Amino acid sequence: MPLDPEISQRLRRDAAGLVCAVIQDDETDAVLMVGWMDDEALHRTLTEGRVTFWSRSRGEYWRKGDTSGHVQWVRSAALDCDGDAVLVRVIQVGAACHTGTRTCFEAGGDLGAVVGE
Amino acid sequence: MPLDPEISQRLRRDAAGLVCAVIQDDETDAVLMVGWMDDEALHRTLTEGRVTFWSRSRGEYWRKGDTSGHVQWVRSAALDCDGDAVLVRVIQVGAACHTGTRTCFEAGGDLGAVVGE
Repeated sequence: MPLDPEISQRLRRDAAGLVCAVIQDDETDAVLMVGWMDDEALHRTLTEGRVTFWSRSRGEYWRKGDTSGHVQWVRSAALDCDGDAVLVRVIQVGAACHTGTRTCFEAGGDLGAVVGE
Repeated sequence: MPLDPEISQRLRRDAAGLVCAVIQDDETDAVLMVGWMDDEALHRTLTEGRVTFWSRSRGEYWRKGDTSGHVQWVRSAALDCDGDAVLVRVIQVGAACHTGTRTCFEAGGDLGAVVGE
């Protein structure tokens, strides 16, 4: 069974057929990571209770935690106004980042932005 | 002056030369919206104290709030582990979404995900 057509027709995919998936910790509200989903990855995420991405680097589906044990249990998912991003709130088991940090943004690190008004 | 080469060389851009920018409310931790940045938009965001995106639909730079007044004042910016997403924490003036809702995910709405364990 494919992705609900009502949802599918609202997606605005990039040239590779993907939308951006922002993963937010449902307990702390931290933004844990960003991944990518095609229709099938989104369908699995919405129906299986666990987050599945499309890996752009490996060219395959990737259900978070299958190898690492760092499962993301889905709490809710919402689409944005123009259909190119999904916000998935999760219970994160262990580290979200493959480097071992809780979030992927801790791993990449601060960019030293000038603070506005 | 272009983007700091040390940052530029860490970016992993999509086919259109863009990275994903997740905008998070620095006061409430809500994820407000997702936009796209090329090197120049990121450079402006890191140095001007306000968020600038690249508009994929209009094909132009777009400094948030210039027409709506709904300015995003930068508080911090961080890159993720693989360089394809930036997390920008902001003070959001007014609605983040052009539809008038506080976040773009309220506008798009819940997708009815099955809740995991």
